[in-house]
Amino acid sequence: MEVINRYVTIKSEINGNPKETDFEIKCSGISVEVGSNDVVLKNLYVSIDPYQINRFKTHSPSSQNSTTNAMAISPGQIISAYGVAKVVASGNDEFEKDDLVVGMICWGEYSVFKGDQSMFRKLNPMALEFPLSHQVGLFVSKPKKGEKVFVSTASGSVGHLVGQYAKQFGCYVVGCAGTKEKVALLKEKLGFDDAFNYKDEPNLKSTIKKYFPDGIDIYFDNVGGEMLEAAIANMKHFGRVAACGVISEYTNTNNRASLNMVDIIYKRIKIQGFLVSDFVDMFPDFISFTMNHLRNGSLKTLEDISIGLDTIPKAFIGLFQGTNIGKKIVKLANE
Amino acid sequence: MEVINRYVTIKSEINGNPKETDFEIKCSGISVEVGSNDVVLKNLYVSIDPYQINRFKTHSPSSQNSTTNAMAISPGQIISAYGVAKVVASGNDEFEKDDLVVGMICWGEYSVFKGDQSMFRKLNPMALEFPLSHQVGLFVSKPKKGEKVFVSTASGSVGHLVGQYAKQFGCYVVGCAGTKEKVALLKEKLGFDDAFNYKDEPNLKSTIKKYFPDGIDIYFDNVGGEMLEAAIANMKHFGRVAACGVISEYTNTNNRASLNMVDIIYKRIKIQGFLVSDFVDMFPDFISFTMNHLRNGSLKTLEDISIGLDTIPKAFIGLFQGTNIGKKIVKLANE
Repeated sequence: MEVINRYVTIKSEINGNPKETDFEIKCSGISVEVGSNDVVLKNLYVSIDPYQINRFKTHSPSSQNSTTNAMAISPGQIISAYGVAKVVASGNDEFEKDDLVVGMICWGEYSVFKGDQSMFRKLNPMALEFPLSHQVGLFVSKPKKGEKVFVSTASGSVGHLVGQYAKQFGCYVVGCAGTKEKVALLKEKLGFDDAFNYKDEPNLKSTIKKYFPDGIDIYFDNVGGEMLEAAIANMKHFGRVAACGVISEYTNTNNRASLNMVDIIYKRIKIQGFLVSDFVDMFPDFISFTMNHLRNGSLKTLEDISIGLDTIPKAFIGLFQGTNIGKKIVKLANE
Repeated sequence: MEVINRYVTIKSEINGNPKETDFEIKCSGISVEVGSNDVVLKNLYVSIDPYQINRFKTHSPSSQNSTTNAMAISPGQIISAYGVAKVVASGNDEFEKDDLVVGMICWGEYSVFKGDQSMFRKLNPMALEFPLSHQVGLFVSKPKKGEKVFVSTASGSVGHLVGQYAKQFGCYVVGCAGTKEKVALLKEKLGFDDAFNYKDEPNLKSTIKKYFPDGIDIYFDNVGGEMLEAAIANMKHFGRVAACGVISEYTNTNNRASLNMVDIIYKRIKIQGFLVSDFVDMFPDFISFTMNHLRNGSLKTLEDISIGLDTIPKAFIGLFQGTNIGKKIVKLANE
């Protein structure tokens, strides 16, 4: 069979704030070669994540950062992304037409896999209920009962789950977000101990001190920049920073955090960058933990869903403007 | 008995580069109270370390950093420092006149301890041969054979030993220092695989890349600022930064490193601040390891010794100008 795949790509590299005109929709043909073990998928849901912006930047081949180099997207190229899809044609014994699968699909109507089965798997029916993309990071910081945890972009796709996991571990959790509605949601629906709107706070350092008079044990950083500086100024001795994302720096490298290393040394602070792929071993435990808590209602998910391929650029741009609440997903087709 | 103690103190808080006029010499009387367990020491050698500058700054009592607050020195106060001394009078059964001791003495001719024995101990005769103040930090980074290690201020008191320890672990070690003579010393006397003079290098990032074409596994940071930024740009995936000192920031907070958190996340870099006091458990192992290697000549120490109490301010100021080679010590008296 052959299908025409409409997909979203970038017109040119994006090095600042993304705009709708940076994107375009292209078409290409997809077919299953006879005798191959290709699988053609119709994409149903696709994840829209801020980290994608780093793939759209100009990449220097001399950079030490082979991860970002390997992930780089050139203008016109298909953009891979996590999502849920349905098999429409398969030359592979392990997959049949109409199977639901989850894994790396793309910002397009169809995806094709050429025998690389590690990139997707059959869907566990429970997985549809909650986004699993990036939330294992909290485990990096080994939260202990009674510890004080601060989460930035706390109503975002990662933050809203991280805060709830920390509560499950018996921590005291404060989050920050960018609107009154998000703050109310954190406190009233998600069980955060407290939350504040960072846009109302001219001095983040003293604001954080108000919420953590004795200091922070764990800062789960999705922001970088000034927020990271203010958090470090308020950390306890032996405090840990889980560096998960840097949304303030993605679109403006002038927003880099200027770190007080004297503080980091004297307070013996640990800053650890991580990617979800480092923790695949923990994934089964993570999933069963999450499923149990979803079932008994002690964990709640926030999803923000737009409909249709054409909404992808706007959905993506909105991440950098804070328009999403919770995990941003685009629904591409009905099952 | 009563002695008059001449000691060096600060005239007022020091928030920038230290000058000789920031210091003065004062006198106070020291006596052993009858029936007390006080010990009076004549100071012989005292350590001159950059970190002392942080004790001389203006301290905000509201700071979360209770370590620097507790260590703060007020103008006129005696400045405690690591050193070697001889007992001149003792009300304490464990110490006799003429015992040699090592521990926290001061920038003065005499020290007195009021029963706080944990602050000093009888001297192990071997200890005179090498400075033990700060060098345990390398263990933080768990160096493995074949790993690539970069050390800044490599001819300083900490750096010159850290580099040699890393060689003992089978690592490839490159150091940087601020003069041609220091660079020659690192390569020819201390066995570093390579070394460079950072003052000759307009672009630290590309210079480091020349010495580490495949990237750095461990960066032992004594500098902060631009050097830390350049090292992080050149780190391998899962690289580790042992944050030991920030001499570029001590006297100028504008020299803070502006960290590329995107790099830190994608390369999963760990930055860990530490103090020597966190590793007291390892001290016996560290000492026996060091003694063995000193005895068989595979470890060499650099000491830079000035004579007399009055040289302390100049010796201290020299640390920030790079005039010392190796560990800076002031000899206060003959045994």
